[in-house]
Amino acid sequence: MCNNLLSLLKNKNATIGIVGMGYVGLPLAMRYADSFRQVIGFDIVSERVSAINKGHSYIEHISSESLVVALEKGLKASTDFSRINECDAIILCVPTPLNKYREPDLSFIFSTIEQIQPYLRPKQVVSLESTTYPGTTEEELRPRLEKLGLVVGEHIFLVYSPEREDPGNSTYTTQTIPKVVGGCTEACLQVGIALYERAVDRVVPVSSTQTAEMTKLLENIHRAVNIGLVNEMKVVADRMGIDIHEVIDAAATKPFGFTAYYPGPGIGGHCIPVDPFYLTWKAREYGVHTRFIELAGEVNSAMPLWVVDKVADALNQHKKAINGSRILILGMAYKKNVDDMRESPSLQLLDLLLHKGARVQYSDPHVARLPKVRKYNFELVSVTLTPKVLASYDAVVLATAHDSFDYAMIAEHSQLIIDTRGHYKHTSPSIIKA
Amino acid sequence: MCNNLLSLLKNKNATIGIVGMGYVGLPLAMRYADSFRQVIGFDIVSERVSAINKGHSYIEHISSESLVVALEKGLKASTDFSRINECDAIILCVPTPLNKYREPDLSFIFSTIEQIQPYLRPKQVVSLESTTYPGTTEEELRPRLEKLGLVVGEHIFLVYSPEREDPGNSTYTTQTIPKVVGGCTEACLQVGIALYERAVDRVVPVSSTQTAEMTKLLENIHRAVNIGLVNEMKVVADRMGIDIHEVIDAAATKPFGFTAYYPGPGIGGHCIPVDPFYLTWKAREYGVHTRFIELAGEVNSAMPLWVVDKVADALNQHKKAINGSRILILGMAYKKNVDDMRESPSLQLLDLLLHKGARVQYSDPHVARLPKVRKYNFELVSVTLTPKVLASYDAVVLATAHDSFDYAMIAEHSQLIIDTRGHYKHTSPSIIKA
Repeated sequence: MCNNLLSLLKNKNATIGIVGMGYVGLPLAMRYADSFRQVIGFDIVSERVSAINKGHSYIEHISSESLVVALEKGLKASTDFSRINECDAIILCVPTPLNKYREPDLSFIFSTIEQIQPYLRPKQVVSLESTTYPGTTEEELRPRLEKLGLVVGEHIFLVYSPEREDPGNSTYTTQTIPKVVGGCTEACLQVGIALYERAVDRVVPVSSTQTAEMTKLLENIHRAVNIGLVNEMKVVADRMGIDIHEVIDAAATKPFGFTAYYPGPGIGGHCIPVDPFYLTWKAREYGVHTRFIELAGEVNSAMPLWVVDKVADALNQHKKAINGSRILILGMAYKKNVDDMRESPSLQLLDLLLHKGARVQYSDPHVARLPKVRKYNFELVSVTLTPKVLASYDAVVLATAHDSFDYAMIAEHSQLIIDTRGHYKHTSPSIIKA
Repeated sequence: MCNNLLSLLKNKNATIGIVGMGYVGLPLAMRYADSFRQVIGFDIVSERVSAINKGHSYIEHISSESLVVALEKGLKASTDFSRINECDAIILCVPTPLNKYREPDLSFIFSTIEQIQPYLRPKQVVSLESTTYPGTTEEELRPRLEKLGLVVGEHIFLVYSPEREDPGNSTYTTQTIPKVVGGCTEACLQVGIALYERAVDRVVPVSSTQTAEMTKLLENIHRAVNIGLVNEMKVVADRMGIDIHEVIDAAATKPFGFTAYYPGPGIGGHCIPVDPFYLTWKAREYGVHTRFIELAGEVNSAMPLWVVDKVADALNQHKKAINGSRILILGMAYKKNVDDMRESPSLQLLDLLLHKGARVQYSDPHVARLPKVRKYNFELVSVTLTPKVLASYDAVVLATAHDSFDYAMIAEHSQLIIDTRGHYKHTSPSIIKA
């Protein structure tokens, strides 16, 4: 039975269904469309589906031209989940956020399983790509499939293969980033390898779905902790009158044993602020603690407030209060050169400054209008930077150092700059590092 | 005045004095001997000085042949500190340990200054290479020099340039590892650059001695924290039945944003367990905390005990107690392929197991006889490994995975292996990962 599915995958004759047309699912669907004849992208949001089918990309770093090419090669988007039945492979790329108690929220996975289960059948492979805690595939997905009478490893094949998308990364693509795969059984693993090896350059098999789940968490825990560490070092160095950015650049000249991470106004994106706590939650079941994760979370989430204190100190030097001051935030996206607003610390900065009575606006060439997000709904549009506009603000906070900002103009015309990214190499009465 | 010294350095006619002929000072002296005509290596230990002058290296990874070459090129060692007067440059490479309250112990620096100060004179440059907290050069060394009537930056030049020696690193040498330099004044910095640029391929000037001091600390804090993190992850993964080494290897296939660090039985060497606490101590003066450092210290120092618990569990499976069992520790050096015993966690393992009543021996091809160290004085010699010897121990603890061990023989003949380095890729009833 497995052989039939294996040859469909190896000959690229399999129909690939990808559920969730977001930052992960859409580029993956386009990658598959480049190799496989038939690819269906599923989403519950009909606006997304019709945008895809019209060749209109809604993600900045994915061009509409490349989407049109994928459509010509056989990509289709659909809201009709009964078509899951046509698919030989079903890849789940749905969000796994935290609830407000910072616990795993698997509701998107569970509701997806509910939606697709009437259409699951033997000779299919199901792959979960969403970041989650070790055990999710085995403890949550497997029983849901077996309840349908499908024996995992015989009738249906279940794997976990974590997404490693990095929006805006111009060096590595979905194709060239190695793909870790773990299967519930040895047969599942072999099918999983066949599923991915035609779409990505290198597949990395591991011994279990738990190992694959833990791999993705370790990658993001590593980042969260290293960013937490440099944020703590920034605060210490700042008190000692040392510029942490100069220190990091000097340390980075060591050709071994050191990797540079940079401090900032907080952490953002869908992964780093969220994923580590999936492990924290699961570890409790085993009576163990993830203290580095907790500490990183604490230090990183304190950063927006630390920046606001720096803004207050800087304004105070000019005998001004935050209350009533005009403040401009430069960069709302969570990292430079992208339009991704997910969990962006700039939103927290904006919120904190507004609550303290500032009159806040923002400028971001990648974000024309602030989108409504779970926590915030600011009705603001991006301000166009000119010398006159810059000079009209009491303070400018550089939150995200997009390459497209005119930094010379910003330095020349701003009354006061609070630089949270170490962009400006020297401090001055008008450039404060934070 | 500075010009005279500058041209002596630039023409390599300066006499270079290096104080402290240990892991840092000896290779540096040999590097200088390769470029400069006259190099004097100072040490208070007369055995070291006479060994050097006889061409006998006492450091495993420095060959006596290369030492003989350095002697032929002009290197001399001396216990006569009056010869500091002959030197145009004095480089201090003395230890900076912690006292038993985990506070900086600068006594070696201070006693060195006392010893050399009668012989200091104008037109000299003094460089401190010992790892220390930000402010040491400015707050401790500068006043001691100025008390002699030597104005820093005019008569005498003071710089801080952290050593980056990595014993056993075969890729990078003293010459090819970039050298960070900070000066007390701009003139000091210029002299410091001239001092090092003839001996190392790349000099990295920074804006102050504090920045240079902080740079070295950040490098080692980064390592201590990353090792702490994977040690914590090891404990969590172990409880979940996941092999952390497999996870790390899989995560390391991500071509960006992740750097592999490996767990172990604890941390050793002169730097990683010690240096971070220099910052912790200094930070208190500023009312700030270094929580990542404290957490890393706590997690890493708990590792030997965790390994001992694993040994006890493994023996217990065989209905044996630690008390009375014969246990062999493989590898006493703190890292593989070197003879460096400084702060080695193997010593702690040995001590803990002895205290619990085990009959412990060790085997280490790099350590024929255990040296007396500050905390321990075990009178043990290395056991030669044979099938019969291995089979005679109730348990073998792989603490340091030297390349020269015969791992196949160890696996075949040991009753029980507790592998703290993830050397063996699979577990079995007789191979336990710890």
